[in-house]
Amino acid sequence: MKNIITQWILLMLTGCILVTANLTQAAQELNLMPIPEQVVQTHSSFRLDEQFTALVQGNPDNRIYEYTTNTLRRLAGRTGLFLPQDFITRSSKCEHPRMEINVQRPGKVELGEDESYQLLVTETAVTLNAATDIGAMRGLETLLQLLDADEKGYFFHTVEINDRPRFPWRGLMIDACRHFMPVDMVKRNLDGMAAVKLNVMHWHLSEDQGFRVECNTFPQLHLQGSDGLYYTQAQIKDIIQYAANRGIRVMPEFDIPGHATSWLVAFPELASAPGPYTIERKWGVFDPTFNPTIEATYTFFDRFFAEICTLFPDDYMHIGGDENSGKQWDTNPDIQAFMQANNIKDNHTLQSYFNGRLLAILEKNHKKMVGWDEILHPGMPKSIVIQSWRGRESLIDAARQGYRTILSNGYYIDLMQPTAFHYLNDPMPADMPLTDQEKQCILGGEATMWAEYVSPETVDSRIWPRTAAIAERLWSPGTVRDLADMFRRLNITSFRLEELGLTHIKNHDMMLRRLTNNQDIVPLQTLVELLEPVKIYTRGAQRDYTSYSPLTRVVDAAIADAPVAREFCELVDNYLAEPARGEHSAEILKQHLQIWKDNHDKLLPVIKTSPILAEIESLSLDLANCAAIGLTALDNIGQHKRPDKKWLDEQLSILKQAGAPRAQTELMVIPGIEKLVRYTAGH
Amino acid sequence: MKNIITQWILLMLTGCILVTANLTQAAQELNLMPIPEQVVQTHSSFRLDEQFTALVQGNPDNRIYEYTTNTLRRLAGRTGLFLPQDFITRSSKCEHPRMEINVQRPGKVELGEDESYQLLVTETAVTLNAATDIGAMRGLETLLQLLDADEKGYFFHTVEINDRPRFPWRGLMIDACRHFMPVDMVKRNLDGMAAVKLNVMHWHLSEDQGFRVECNTFPQLHLQGSDGLYYTQAQIKDIIQYAANRGIRVMPEFDIPGHATSWLVAFPELASAPGPYTIERKWGVFDPTFNPTIEATYTFFDRFFAEICTLFPDDYMHIGGDENSGKQWDTNPDIQAFMQANNIKDNHTLQSYFNGRLLAILEKNHKKMVGWDEILHPGMPKSIVIQSWRGRESLIDAARQGYRTILSNGYYIDLMQPTAFHYLNDPMPADMPLTDQEKQCILGGEATMWAEYVSPETVDSRIWPRTAAIAERLWSPGTVRDLADMFRRLNITSFRLEELGLTHIKNHDMMLRRLTNNQDIVPLQTLVELLEPVKIYTRGAQRDYTSYSPLTRVVDAAIADAPVAREFCELVDNYLAEPARGEHSAEILKQHLQIWKDNHDKLLPVIKTSPILAEIESLSLDLANCAAIGLTALDNIGQHKRPDKKWLDEQLSILKQAGAPRAQTELMVIPGIEKLVRYTAGH
Repeated sequence: MKNIITQWILLMLTGCILVTANLTQAAQELNLMPIPEQVVQTHSSFRLDEQFTALVQGNPDNRIYEYTTNTLRRLAGRTGLFLPQDFITRSSKCEHPRMEINVQRPGKVELGEDESYQLLVTETAVTLNAATDIGAMRGLETLLQLLDADEKGYFFHTVEINDRPRFPWRGLMIDACRHFMPVDMVKRNLDGMAAVKLNVMHWHLSEDQGFRVECNTFPQLHLQGSDGLYYTQAQIKDIIQYAANRGIRVMPEFDIPGHATSWLVAFPELASAPGPYTIERKWGVFDPTFNPTIEATYTFFDRFFAEICTLFPDDYMHIGGDENSGKQWDTNPDIQAFMQANNIKDNHTLQSYFNGRLLAILEKNHKKMVGWDEILHPGMPKSIVIQSWRGRESLIDAARQGYRTILSNGYYIDLMQPTAFHYLNDPMPADMPLTDQEKQCILGGEATMWAEYVSPETVDSRIWPRTAAIAERLWSPGTVRDLADMFRRLNITSFRLEELGLTHIKNHDMMLRRLTNNQDIVPLQTLVELLEPVKIYTRGAQRDYTSYSPLTRVVDAAIADAPVAREFCELVDNYLAEPARGEHSAEILKQHLQIWKDNHDKLLPVIKTSPILAEIESLSLDLANCAAIGLTALDNIGQHKRPDKKWLDEQLSILKQAGAPRAQTELMVIPGIEKLVRYTAGH
Repeated sequence: MKNIITQWILLMLTGCILVTANLTQAAQELNLMPIPEQVVQTHSSFRLDEQFTALVQGNPDNRIYEYTTNTLRRLAGRTGLFLPQDFITRSSKCEHPRMEINVQRPGKVELGEDESYQLLVTETAVTLNAATDIGAMRGLETLLQLLDADEKGYFFHTVEINDRPRFPWRGLMIDACRHFMPVDMVKRNLDGMAAVKLNVMHWHLSEDQGFRVECNTFPQLHLQGSDGLYYTQAQIKDIIQYAANRGIRVMPEFDIPGHATSWLVAFPELASAPGPYTIERKWGVFDPTFNPTIEATYTFFDRFFAEICTLFPDDYMHIGGDENSGKQWDTNPDIQAFMQANNIKDNHTLQSYFNGRLLAILEKNHKKMVGWDEILHPGMPKSIVIQSWRGRESLIDAARQGYRTILSNGYYIDLMQPTAFHYLNDPMPADMPLTDQEKQCILGGEATMWAEYVSPETVDSRIWPRTAAIAERLWSPGTVRDLADMFRRLNITSFRLEELGLTHIKNHDMMLRRLTNNQDIVPLQTLVELLEPVKIYTRGAQRDYTSYSPLTRVVDAAIADAPVAREFCELVDNYLAEPARGEHSAEILKQHLQIWKDNHDKLLPVIKTSPILAEIESLSLDLANCAAIGLTALDNIGQHKRPDKKWLDEQLSILKQAGAPRAQTELMVIPGIEKLVRYTAGH
């Protein structure tokens, strides 16, 4: 956590001056995300009509038939065309198919499987070739992104695409513990992942705040540790199947030895300090930790993982290992005696001993161990995988020592940072100080959706669309780094994700309706479009939250990358680069500012009758005042007036005050207005 | 079906002249739906703050603790208040609770259970008393509807409410066969049902188009009859528990002997004509029917129901029985011989024989039989329940013969009829020609959501909010019939249902975004707000649909009771009642008409780049033309001009043409504009 802020600032600076991109012109014109490795565009069209049919050939897994059927449904849904095929199965016949899907063999849902495909769209036919049905599914998503329309109807752009992922491990971590995430949330996000070619769902299933898996061996784990909010084994199997049908691995995480309060509710005797324990309701790093020095702990985990490793078929098992405070170990005399007797010099080494014991258990159950970067310790075998979260250094360290590793540092989407920051965060930038062999250790990365401040209602708006940009970083060539083009395509991708049931767009207005108590939402929307939630770990520092605090306030409706604010600030930059030729830009800026100036009078009556909005009243007023300042500045610039220093100082003081976070949000247009003010004052 | 149209016209006429209502003034000022039996409003407030706590006392079922916890979450969600309680359980302590919930005994989720409650809100305390926890849950929903806000904050209106339902059977039928409805759709609609105090989910689980239940006895039923779209037994149990936790019964329907194609895919030998059979893809009444004359049929059902009656704990089992075409029976010589040998004179009697055999099987499994009104036959015992759908006559017939009965005729929400029609459709109007004893047979009613033309994406917008009006009909005193007040409360109720995850509002804009290919949706919205899908059974008559046809066109985004159109037509009536005093009304009408007149120019470019909208181009143009006519008519009226007959005829001809359905929708403002035109011409 400590390094994240400086890293972020550094990367933002880098981002601002970054314009490189060996992006082919072809790919830029299309709306593909992630951009394929090779695209040749032939600038014609395959017209889609009600004769469009598909045939799957070769030797695929059954999953491709359902995926193809769903592809036809999505095409029909977008176009309104009554496509002729019902449910495509292995025994389906199709004479003269317009689309042929050729698959050589069933894909395995495991790390490193071939996901490449070749997609050829001519004026008369669509041909999709892939070694595995998983590759074919990736290709079908690309085909769906090639759909376009003109006055004559719908069509696919004609192309020849050869594509394969840059990294084999492209994940999204879903924390179902801080707030429980129901099955439908997981499923719709699996659909979203497949749409942008992610292939690992890392499922964070145990925490201080909840143990989320039905455990038959130790049913008290879920009965006492979950408030009744857990996944049944039937649901877990269903989700794993659902993911597999999209070529997505499901890697579970059981976070030990720290972050373990919910386990210890039922098993206080395994803790490093006396109980009793209750489910943790607050956020943070807590002390309850398994006792690594008693055999009962390993007997417990031996039986636990025997069951769990069967339930989850993936080769990898994540054991967490992060943020062990060590306090319970420091104060337990038996543990201290054990360390002395066994020549264990510090807590990190003791945790490494614990990990080693666990490793044996996992290996017995044919699993490879994954953990957060704290598990990196000289004694560990090279089979483990290190998930780098505290800083990029641990990624490089691990690779240099020959450990395989995945990057999450810089992909913490819960921290409400801008898309550009995540997008430019490359697991293996061109100047990575590693040998070719060491580079092989870098498997990819994972976006992490920690769930302190998200509910099932808001979580999609934190995952999407930013995770699509991360997905591109992990799939596309490293040279694909054009921010403007990324934002153009991200906007379209975000819209398209709605067809999968994702709620990141539609829940926004719903939340505004609730916030206004069903009054006109436009004035509130005008403000919220300019607000972002406070970033990094500020939110929890400003107010004490529990796991049952409401997540329905303005801060929860606000999103990262407040879109109107970003556009406004960009426009200010463009305008100020050459104000004399910026009449049109100035006009648009004025329109924005005039609306904001007038907005407070419209929003105030809404605030007065919807007390949940009281906390933004001063923000709304500040926006009006700052917009007035911006209008004055624009007028000055247009009329070549230069106000004096006193005026400047007064305005800057007002702007500074307006830039202060309130209601755990911040006004993102202040920097743009400040630039106008400084410009007119000659600063 | 045949009687529905005339019935509807008749009831609409009745509705227009209906103004009665013994509604207390108190209830009218509140936003309660359904309106309670007795409300005394004491015109003060209980202020809600962050000290609000709840205590459950007495001897309830565990479900009330979760329900109370969820009630606190919903209050926190609306108000942003950080309420202090985490998860309320039987062992929760709470000193000085602000809300006391007193329950005498655990409720049974069965027909006729006590759902009454008393809710007392004073300035200092909330007290909820109920015989059962089910009654308490109904009271908690009422409390949630009492929440209001002013500048000082949130509060409950102070009241004394004594409430209980008018009818014990208040249902919503969900057809999961024509289109499969996933678990989350069922759950969010169960939440919606509980919010408006419905207590039966009738689950239509087998049809020509699909068999939707995992059957262990005969797995080929779901494996061959469902395209993989079925509920596992674990999911069914989960849903039944979820419903029970809301005091809602789940009554399954297995529709036999007709509507049976999907069963016969795996068991053609049980059909009345030789197979093979494939899953039906079209809509309508089909011939495949079980053979009631062979013992194999009863052996099959004996084993089938032995499993199914255990899976579903409700006392009632619905066996369908509707729309048996009889064609396979007429043409099967063995069946004809059987009828002759057994002195069975017609198909209805043969079906009654079949039902009698089934009845014995159900009774052996401790179930009471329910069926559509076709099952009414002199020989049947009085234990069965008749669901009246073909006409109100069958309801009266059944009651007169001493059969218990529920009304669905008039509650077919799939037919896109107006809320007022459903609302005024009373299972037991004041002039019902029945004795008091016969009236006891009328148990209530059910809204039926047949699923030919709905997908999981659109279905909520067909169920809600109209089903809330039906729920009021079934719960509230029969004298509650004020349409204007109902619409006022329905609007608020509809908005509140969003907090339960229902998608009837939020999916609308999402569909418009897809229809416009993510362009500005306002022009399309302006048109769609005035459109309704064609009603009754017109949609299928206009175009051939299959079970996999897209349901993403304008007709699917349009809703019943196009709200802006209704308001416009009402305003026309008000204005024309006294034009001299209607300057303000005329101004609003002009604003509407001007927007519509200008809308086509804005919508046309969207249509041109989004071919799925091509089918509404002429509707959009017609709206512009008709709006221009309306403006002329308004001007004439204002200036006391009277145009000649030729003008009138020309305008009426244009309006008539504009009133013709296209894209399976119709423009609902034409009647209003026509009234303006006729008025100005002196007609």
